[in-house]
Amino acid sequence: MELPPLVLDRDAGRPLAVQLAEGLRAATTDGTLRAGDRLPSTRALALELGISRTVTAAAYEQLLAEGWVQGRRGAGTFVVDAPGPAVPVRPAPAPAPRPVLLDLSAGRPCTEVIDRAAWRRAWRAGADLLADSEPDPVGLVAFRGAVVENLLRHRGLAVAADDVLATAGSTAAIAELARILPAGGRVAVEEPGYQRAVAALRAAGLVVVPVPVDGAGLVVDALPAGLAAVYCTPAHQYPLGGRLSAGRRLALVERARADGFLVIEDDYDGEMRYDVAPLPLLAALGRDVVVHLGTASKLFSPTLGVGWAVLPPAVRGALLDLRDRTGTRPSLAGQRVFAALAGHGDLARHLRRLRRELATRRSAAVATVTAAGYRPRGDAAGAHLVVELADGPTERAVLAAAADRGVRLDGLARHHTGAIDTAGVVLGYAGPTRAELDRAMAVLREVLAG
Amino acid sequence: MELPPLVLDRDAGRPLAVQLAEGLRAATTDGTLRAGDRLPSTRALALELGISRTVTAAAYEQLLAEGWVQGRRGAGTFVVDAPGPAVPVRPAPAPAPRPVLLDLSAGRPCTEVIDRAAWRRAWRAGADLLADSEPDPVGLVAFRGAVVENLLRHRGLAVAADDVLATAGSTAAIAELARILPAGGRVAVEEPGYQRAVAALRAAGLVVVPVPVDGAGLVVDALPAGLAAVYCTPAHQYPLGGRLSAGRRLALVERARADGFLVIEDDYDGEMRYDVAPLPLLAALGRDVVVHLGTASKLFSPTLGVGWAVLPPAVRGALLDLRDRTGTRPSLAGQRVFAALAGHGDLARHLRRLRRELATRRSAAVATVTAAGYRPRGDAAGAHLVVELADGPTERAVLAAAADRGVRLDGLARHHTGAIDTAGVVLGYAGPTRAELDRAMAVLREVLAG
Repeated sequence: MELPPLVLDRDAGRPLAVQLAEGLRAATTDGTLRAGDRLPSTRALALELGISRTVTAAAYEQLLAEGWVQGRRGAGTFVVDAPGPAVPVRPAPAPAPRPVLLDLSAGRPCTEVIDRAAWRRAWRAGADLLADSEPDPVGLVAFRGAVVENLLRHRGLAVAADDVLATAGSTAAIAELARILPAGGRVAVEEPGYQRAVAALRAAGLVVVPVPVDGAGLVVDALPAGLAAVYCTPAHQYPLGGRLSAGRRLALVERARADGFLVIEDDYDGEMRYDVAPLPLLAALGRDVVVHLGTASKLFSPTLGVGWAVLPPAVRGALLDLRDRTGTRPSLAGQRVFAALAGHGDLARHLRRLRRELATRRSAAVATVTAAGYRPRGDAAGAHLVVELADGPTERAVLAAAADRGVRLDGLARHHTGAIDTAGVVLGYAGPTRAELDRAMAVLREVLAG
Repeated sequence: MELPPLVLDRDAGRPLAVQLAEGLRAATTDGTLRAGDRLPSTRALALELGISRTVTAAAYEQLLAEGWVQGRRGAGTFVVDAPGPAVPVRPAPAPAPRPVLLDLSAGRPCTEVIDRAAWRRAWRAGADLLADSEPDPVGLVAFRGAVVENLLRHRGLAVAADDVLATAGSTAAIAELARILPAGGRVAVEEPGYQRAVAALRAAGLVVVPVPVDGAGLVVDALPAGLAAVYCTPAHQYPLGGRLSAGRRLALVERARADGFLVIEDDYDGEMRYDVAPLPLLAALGRDVVVHLGTASKLFSPTLGVGWAVLPPAVRGALLDLRDRTGTRPSLAGQRVFAALAGHGDLARHLRRLRRELATRRSAAVATVTAAGYRPRGDAAGAHLVVELADGPTERAVLAAAADRGVRLDGLARHHTGAIDTAGVVLGYAGPTRAELDRAMAVLREVLAG
């Protein structure tokens, strides 16, 4: 059997394994490969194409899972009899042709700067997690150690490993916290704000109270009485991008103590800031009333599915009790890979690379927005900025015009809990590759200019 | 600086990295290593001890996380200045000396049969999970494909990959399901039964109704009216070990349809059975009313932290909706490793090895119990059996006598929701190594005999 020509492009921005699987799938569809044909071994195909065997094995696994091919141990991998696959798996629908989409949504990680060799090493290190390590509700010691180092060196918060709980990421942590707050309690959330937090709070039966934000973040004076908790994003308000001023930080912590509410500090991208001095974490000002949440999703990747929480002792106890009752155990695998990626000072090196890259991208984004006659907002930190559209084209028109040209932008409308009072676009610059970002900026300049 | 002699024992049943970290920790405590001493590089130490560098690196990471040593990139790893570590991490308390404990608790996996090379390969395969793969609420295609194959080949259930949801394990799945059942609803649970299910159901505000079991599992006729759901373990009742008879399976599914309740089938160790014919899964009899739950924890290891669910469409929709609101995303890393371990027919090979090993162990356990004058119960399937203590020594006396001799047994008392009406011990034979099991059986024979 002759294999069809398989063209793989390392620079296509799509995994080689996905490209290879597509090529083989196409070959079974167009008749180049027929039912019963034996595929070359993963090793032989890897040699032939000059790629790693991991890639060929991943492609075969994908096709096996989709039911295009069938593996018979010792005999090889065969194309299944048409039309029905041997294993009753529905094949994934063929991707419809669509314009190339440059995704400028906020919240995507900048994976371009991850050192590929370090990533592979970190996964290999996972193998020394013995099969009989029982997941525990607190988290791996090595993971919590890496978090302690990150908090101390990069966020100015000195805690012990015993103070840290592993989480399955920020939203999952908010959902857990929501379940230990008093049933039916009122929780203040920034408006506009993070709607997944709103959903998680509401799913636990809490009442969400939107509170306004301005250029200096949450307007602390506008907090109503009778709150069970306040959810906020002080390092870089999501989505408007303000940094909570030092005065407001102190006021918020004092108010929490006086009124007896809990502050949830979501430090989702706090490691990134530009040309501005660091501000103390809320947790550094009031460990007794603040739950601090961090995540590996923006620092490295959401693939790891892990984050961390530093909590007042009573809250920590209540959360561990809930975890005990619900069998919640943060993934050991993700923790192990993070610990390996972030250990031995590697996190500091990675962060330097990440900040340098994001600083360059941010300058490009600011230049584009300015050239189009707008003033960027919220660009002093994080990995997104905001363009307010007070008098110009409507938000909907800008999003549609960008989408027509293959650029996905995020509008402010969907970040509101109550009435929509601010129009604008949120411009995330971390997710695309640098080349994609350049193309997207060219589109954006024209779209904004009208 | 001279390193202390480090004695590592590959057959000690404890990870080499843990042993190495202990040795180095002891050396800093007893003064062999002093503050400021530079440790050899991980590579040099690995060479010297004839072990893998992964092991030395893991040990160093552990010590770093605990604050015993400090890494300075380019300069090496140094013992920190006594008494306080450089990073404010509290060192783990030194383990207190205690008698060797042979743990015969039920529910532990038989990790001895896991192919170490396959385990390492599976972790390496994780590296081809790109850093920009966004965790999704459904689960990886490759993972769901491996589950489909397992269900078809080993559990007689034909489903498509689209019917499978990844979960974070059985208890986590029960906790999720509990949140989509009607608030305040009544859920029947086997008595004695799985108390972590009871806790998860109650944590969501449901009312748990204990229903008796006998040698043929749940007494379906005893189910009261007005139930929202029934939680059960038909393949091997937990803890008594009965297999739900075919007649009761049909009756349960018919009753569910007539009364409009949901059946949660927890197939926690359904892949294991001895000298008995397979029985149809509840899900095979009634996909419309049954949620089927499986887990990688007993098949391979709880380290992976993954399981799967096959659900009626409406339940699946409600669960995905909850996941969306709460940001619940099953760990990609655990799924990826499981898919690599279970792909390409490797699961069938592993299962053969596992069943063979467990069959041998089960015979040894049955022989021990019989020799002591008892009749084992619930030993036709799974990885534990039960010794009822009707007239002999009390449950508490047996547990205490075993513990005194270093054997941890599990009593039936703690598996009850209501009044305790059955005394006995649960004997899990999967967890220990074979050698440990032999020693534990010798103890058990004497303890049971008198």
